[in-house]
Amino acid sequence: MILGTGSAWDTACVQLADAARHLDLDDGMHDLLRTPRRSISVSVPLLRDDGQLLVLSGYRVQHNLARGPAKGGLRYHPACDLDEVKALAMWMTWKCALMGIPYGGAKGGIAVEPGLLSRQERERMTRRYAAELVPLIGPDKDIPAPDVGTDEQTMAWIMDTYSTHTGHTAAGVVTGKPLSIGGSAGRAGATSRGVQLAAFAALRELDKDPRETTVAVQGFGKVGALAAQYLHDAGCRLVAVSDVKGGVHNGAGLNPTALIRHVARGGDTVVGYPGTDTITNAELLELE
Amino acid sequence: MILGTGSAWDTACVQLADAARHLDLDDGMHDLLRTPRRSISVSVPLLRDDGQLLVLSGYRVQHNLARGPAKGGLRYHPACDLDEVKALAMWMTWKCALMGIPYGGAKGGIAVEPGLLSRQERERMTRRYAAELVPLIGPDKDIPAPDVGTDEQTMAWIMDTYSTHTGHTAAGVVTGKPLSIGGSAGRAGATSRGVQLAAFAALRELDKDPRETTVAVQGFGKVGALAAQYLHDAGCRLVAVSDVKGGVHNGAGLNPTALIRHVARGGDTVVGYPGTDTITNAELLELE
Amino acid sequence: MILGTGSAWDTACVQLADAARHLDLDDGMHDLLRTPRRSISVSVPLLRDDGQLLVLSGYRVQHNLARGPAKGGLRYHPACDLDEVKALAMWMTWKCALMGIPYGGAKGGIAVEPGLLSRQERERMTRRYAAELVPLIGPDKDIPAPDVGTDEQTMAWIMDTYSTHTGHTAAGVVTGKPLSIGGSAGRAGATSRGVQLAAFAALRELDKDPRETTVAVQGFGKVGALAAQYLHDAGCRLVAVSDVKGGVHNGAGLNPTALIRHVARGGDTVVGYPGTDTITNAELLELE
Amino acid sequence: MILGTGSAWDTACVQLADAARHLDLDDGMHDLLRTPRRSISVSVPLLRDDGQLLVLSGYRVQHNLARGPAKGGLRYHPACDLDEVKALAMWMTWKCALMGIPYGGAKGGIAVEPGLLSRQERERMTRRYAAELVPLIGPDKDIPAPDVGTDEQTMAWIMDTYSTHTGHTAAGVVTGKPLSIGGSAGRAGATSRGVQLAAFAALRELDKDPRETTVAVQGFGKVGALAAQYLHDAGCRLVAVSDVKGGVHNGAGLNPTALIRHVARGGDTVVGYPGTDTITNAELLELE
Amino acid sequence: MILGTGSAWDTACVQLADAARHLDLDDGMHDLLRTPRRSISVSVPLLRDDGQLLVLSGYRVQHNLARGPAKGGLRYHPACDLDEVKALAMWMTWKCALMGIPYGGAKGGIAVEPGLLSRQERERMTRRYAAELVPLIGPDKDIPAPDVGTDEQTMAWIMDTYSTHTGHTAAGVVTGKPLSIGGSAGRAGATSRGVQLAAFAALRELDKDPRETTVAVQGFGKVGALAAQYLHDAGCRLVAVSDVKGGVHNGAGLNPTALIRHVARGGDTVVGYPGTDTITNAELLELE
Amino acid sequence: MILGTGSAWDTACVQLADAARHLDLDDGMHDLLRTPRRSISVSVPLLRDDGQLLVLSGYRVQHNLARGPAKGGLRYHPACDLDEVKALAMWMTWKCALMGIPYGGAKGGIAVEPGLLSRQERERMTRRYAAELVPLIGPDKDIPAPDVGTDEQTMAWIMDTYSTHTGHTAAGVVTGKPLSIGGSAGRAGATSRGVQLAAFAALRELDKDPRETTVAVQGFGKVGALAAQYLHDAGCRLVAVSDVKGGVHNGAGLNPTALIRHVARGGDTVVGYPGTDTITNAELLELE
Repeated sequence: MILGTGSAWDTACVQLADAARHLDLDDGMHDLLRTPRRSISVSVPLLRDDGQLLVLSGYRVQHNLARGPAKGGLRYHPACDLDEVKALAMWMTWKCALMGIPYGGAKGGIAVEPGLLSRQERERMTRRYAAELVPLIGPDKDIPAPDVGTDEQTMAWIMDTYSTHTGHTAAGVVTGKPLSIGGSAGRAGATSRGVQLAAFAALRELDKDPRETTVAVQGFGKVGALAAQYLHDAGCRLVAVSDVKGGVHNGAGLNPTALIRHVARGGDTVVGYPGTDTITNAELLELE
Repeated sequence: MILGTGSAWDTACVQLADAARHLDLDDGMHDLLRTPRRSISVSVPLLRDDGQLLVLSGYRVQHNLARGPAKGGLRYHPACDLDEVKALAMWMTWKCALMGIPYGGAKGGIAVEPGLLSRQERERMTRRYAAELVPLIGPDKDIPAPDVGTDEQTMAWIMDTYSTHTGHTAAGVVTGKPLSIGGSAGRAGATSRGVQLAAFAALRELDKDPRETTVAVQGFGKVGALAAQYLHDAGCRLVAVSDVKGGVHNGAGLNPTALIRHVARGGDTVVGYPGTDTITNAELLELE
Repeated sequence: MILGTGSAWDTACVQLADAARHLDLDDGMHDLLRTPRRSISVSVPLLRDDGQLLVLSGYRVQHNLARGPAKGGLRYHPACDLDEVKALAMWMTWKCALMGIPYGGAKGGIAVEPGLLSRQERERMTRRYAAELVPLIGPDKDIPAPDVGTDEQTMAWIMDTYSTHTGHTAAGVVTGKPLSIGGSAGRAGATSRGVQLAAFAALRELDKDPRETTVAVQGFGKVGALAAQYLHDAGCRLVAVSDVKGGVHNGAGLNPTALIRHVARGGDTVVGYPGTDTITNAELLELE
Repeated sequence: MILGTGSAWDTACVQLADAARHLDLDDGMHDLLRTPRRSISVSVPLLRDDGQLLVLSGYRVQHNLARGPAKGGLRYHPACDLDEVKALAMWMTWKCALMGIPYGGAKGGIAVEPGLLSRQERERMTRRYAAELVPLIGPDKDIPAPDVGTDEQTMAWIMDTYSTHTGHTAAGVVTGKPLSIGGSAGRAGATSRGVQLAAFAALRELDKDPRETTVAVQGFGKVGALAAQYLHDAGCRLVAVSDVKGGVHNGAGLNPTALIRHVARGGDTVVGYPGTDTITNAELLELE
Repeated sequence: MILGTGSAWDTACVQLADAARHLDLDDGMHDLLRTPRRSISVSVPLLRDDGQLLVLSGYRVQHNLARGPAKGGLRYHPACDLDEVKALAMWMTWKCALMGIPYGGAKGGIAVEPGLLSRQERERMTRRYAAELVPLIGPDKDIPAPDVGTDEQTMAWIMDTYSTHTGHTAAGVVTGKPLSIGGSAGRAGATSRGVQLAAFAALRELDKDPRETTVAVQGFGKVGALAAQYLHDAGCRLVAVSDVKGGVHNGAGLNPTALIRHVARGGDTVVGYPGTDTITNAELLELE
Repeated sequence: MILGTGSAWDTACVQLADAARHLDLDDGMHDLLRTPRRSISVSVPLLRDDGQLLVLSGYRVQHNLARGPAKGGLRYHPACDLDEVKALAMWMTWKCALMGIPYGGAKGGIAVEPGLLSRQERERMTRRYAAELVPLIGPDKDIPAPDVGTDEQTMAWIMDTYSTHTGHTAAGVVTGKPLSIGGSAGRAGATSRGVQLAAFAALRELDKDPRETTVAVQGFGKVGALAAQYLHDAGCRLVAVSDVKGGVHNGAGLNPTALIRHVARGGDTVVGYPGTDTITNAELLELE
């Protein structure tokens, strides 16, 4: 399979064509699987704090609804456009189908640099965008989630806007909302947990006991630090971790909880953690 | 004002920019008036009579809803695309505002050559397209009408699809439907009536009495023949009419009812109507 | 046309078959025009004032909805059954179509002798029946009216039950309701007015001046008395009226207002009204 | 009738009791006519521009819905409380019933001094209050209007908030909105027109010809100036007008259009208008 | 109990009367339990592939809704009529109540021979019937299922028609739909599983160990073959099976998986399966 | 903390102020947590069995909806007023939040002595009150439950009224309904179960084995008798119980099932149960 060098949508279409060839799909079915069910562009007027009126473009693509309500993130990024959103929505259709969960695929976004907006501006923009989508989203129709440039607070605003419209607290309209209003426990560490589960699946394939396995984790940010913690908690011996400034090693085992506390306290790096040898990222990858 | 040589959308944007300059609008307001409130593309799968699956693209743009529900036609044409529909929708916004009627502007369409489809295929395609739009159209939201490639029957299918969804006969969801299910009397001759009214307004400006005015009508099709009839009925003396094959003249006056019957009976032309001189279209335009 | 000797439904079907033959309808269209769109039977449990539970059968048939919401009365009568209601609903379809009003035909009823029920029982029965029909009736769907055994009060109960369901006062759900909650002025005398208008239409056909016409009215109840009044008010000379007990005659003219007051005051008959000759019904019909 | 010296609600109840005595109503019906159908208090949190959170109390009382949707104003005033709103709602019920229009009575308000809020704060407050009322108001349920401390802009915000909730432009949810979004022409001068119509009704009673009547208008503000204009336009001779600074008199007649222009141009008073004698308000009232 | 010799409805009513006698129910309660809550007949026009218009009658009876939404199958059969559907609906009420599940009873059908229709005709007929029922069915109201003449595909069409109406994929509106759009795993073998569970319950009553029990299964179609499989899988020794052509016996035990494969491969009968004695159905029933 | 001596609302506000001081809340947040989201008073006209019209006041306060639908009881009591209901609603908000369940707090009631009404009057009153609340309650909005003066039957009437409005059986609109229409098993004994669980939690704190613990229960009514049963069933030795008439003691253990049967059979007291010593309530509390 050779991917197109063009947009995300071109790439996704090449991937689909490749699959269609393998499955020997006829042209009609191939077209049906490619064409999004609904693509919506909406005008999102934003009155800036300084009184200036900015008119942004918001998107939502529901690629496929055949297996249940659509599911997919919402991104705030200057390069966001309809083609990108279409590609991401089609990929969500595939992901949900592959996992066998009863959801279709969707994606949305606003072409904006959220970092340049005040919190009040982000709230007004999000609520206006959500209000435009109200007839098309909902727990039974299409369920947004955080993505690039959006977060728990964005989802809380969407949920509140939608709830005001339906007349009751509708927690099911978004995922990725704060725990206090019904968010899912475990979502924050879900990617790290996935790293651990994938590693354990590999160990099972290799017929190895996790309790007799040593672990080195490259990257000690949001995902890596928790992955180190989960692997350690599940019985592996953590012997090395690293970040952009370098790594640390101790063959007798490192305590990830203490390491996380060390990084949080200052220095922004694992390097220099007491009782460890300093190593490079390259050396970490070459550890046995 | 120099129009762009590009798409309808480019043309419309140049017109808007021109108006914005005259009105000295700030950039925010200019953007707000340009950006469509909602642009929707939907997938319209059509199972052909021969069993082949065709996946068409349907569009609906609601350009502005500030003054009331959106109003605008629906066209079936191979060259129909989102940009064309956006331009036509913006023009509808302007037309409704200029006439002071409480409607916004919209337009829609499907990229298809309707002449290549059977009646059953056109019905299935129209109903599927309508079903996708159900949450966004309605007597209080957006009211389609016939346009290029669509007709009374198309509107009847849309009305029936929408009515089935709402659970009752909803005649208000479309205009241009057949009289028997609630269409407006006079709609068929509305353009011809407009010709007559505009001519009379001009006569009033010139302080001329219609009863002392002679009339020549170029074109004797759907619009021209009825315009000739209305002008005649309102007291003008009809002295000449023409069609693509030539014209006829009688200074003492022609009877449009008899002429229409003559054309309907055969020949497909006014030429040869008894008691008239044959003239060319050019001669008709040069009559006093 | 020979009518069936069977039920109202048989009669109506024979009438339709007759019309279908005249119009040369194919079997499919004939069937379509005969088969009611929806026939509903509902259980109407009624807790009698004495604590006994009675389970009545209620009906509503919506014969045709193609031209707009269905319209038709509601009767309370022991002989009411689904077949009778179907016939009456089909006749309503025809009546609305003949008058060119944008309504379809419906009819409903409960198989009960309303005279045996207390007012509280009639209210409970009506409200329960109405509650069962709520998803199927409404100003845009189907609009009941009084008929045999039902009256303004019945319509007020239905309107209130329906309004409670929709959450606002929905006067449009029934016709024939009391004036104070939105009933139509003139409805009470509508039949009498129809008698007068029909008589005047006949006079116009005969090229006769109403002001030079004498009038005799057989029957002086709810319809006849008001018809006499309207004919008198419109300029005719009322020379005789009659009721089941006989009639009165005065060639110089009778005052219907005074006659109505006379009957209301006692005796329950026009016979004996001062200044009149007593005549029989037969004599009345033979007056010039 | 002696009014209570207490709250508006006490006053209204005394008035009702007085009427009930005249009508000989039983206690149940008297209670039914007094007790509001629904009284709602809502929390209206307002984030001030300076970041401070203020929690205001908003009210809406629907006193009677029996004759149609409720109708009544919305006031922003520090002294607004539930009792005042209940009284005003009951008075609206009476006003609508007296005029024979198919509406019930309602009233609402927020206990706040609107003059202390910025325009942005007033908008946020109004929208939040409106959002809380959405399930209870609407063209078929309850229709707010401007009152003390609220204006066209307030109604526009309510209409927009409500429209966003219903998914389409719902102009019918408020009266007193700006003309450009569907407000009623003539509403601005309606009170002045009422003054003229009442005066003419009095003249008819007195069997006097308006064209032979001279008119003096005390007060030349929003209501008085237009009343003077309407009386003049209808044929009366305007001989004197006054304001808080004094009055002017010209027995031969004053031109109200010119007077209004004179006041608008400066001085803020009619006094000194060329060609007039200066008089006091007392003298104006004593003119023949 | 002696059953009536009449229709299913007569039979069901006799059964109910019998139960009412045992329970000493008063007449009102007896009537309440007999009378269906709602019986609906709808017109189902079907445009045949050859252009002919056929008008079919469709039914849905909701017998009882007191314990939750109604539940019941949908049959396509020429003999289907309202009385049969009423009986089947009442039986569904009883079945759901006996099993203690929170559902009432319903049943529906169309009087048609589905085998005479093309797939396209069956789809159009099903969608039209479903559209008529939309206001009365749904996950919270009434949930159809397959029955005689209908199957998974029928349910998929109903689900899609209903989902189009509600605006989102509503898998809960039918049971018995294909697994790929949310059908229940295990439904296909549910009847066979019931046979096994009933047999085991009997064994428990008799205090017998399934592992020491021999089993003979008469009938080896959709239900019997899977029942044989389940009994075998649960530890019983399968010694004989039979079909319309005869049976096979092997005291040492038969392998149902192999037998099913044998039948599928050809011959359409178990007779002749290697390593077995051929027996008659009568002999099978007399085996120890 | 010193509680106010005033109304329940005063008490609740003092409690909140106390908590706000501990948490150092700013005034805005304190106000937000105090002010009910919505307080509704409705008119509840009741036609008494004797034909008299009584107009009652009904209330519902939804104090907080931020964490999910509101939850709270409904009381019928002459002293019920808006202030009491507001206090009880705020306490429900706190209770739900403390237990970490996703519900807000509400409470409602009618100012009436239910004991003075007939069952029919209670039903009519409850249904009318429920009908007024329909737009504001529901499984996703606000879920009433029994409280002082209301019971299972009250909840069944509310559920039926609400279900009639929504068009389907909506069991989720109330808790505390009869088991037969979806009530929760275990609700009847929930308070007794709570006593047992609290006792066991205390034993765990004290590190004591329930099986070696003796139990004395003061009060042998609805709550106490079942608590004795649950404690006995969980392994404790029940040595004494008492009621208003005195207590019984048997150091070897009492059988609560037999005791309950003894009380039910007559005497209305545990005193005199065979094989026990009679003790006073004071002695019971002093048992070891």
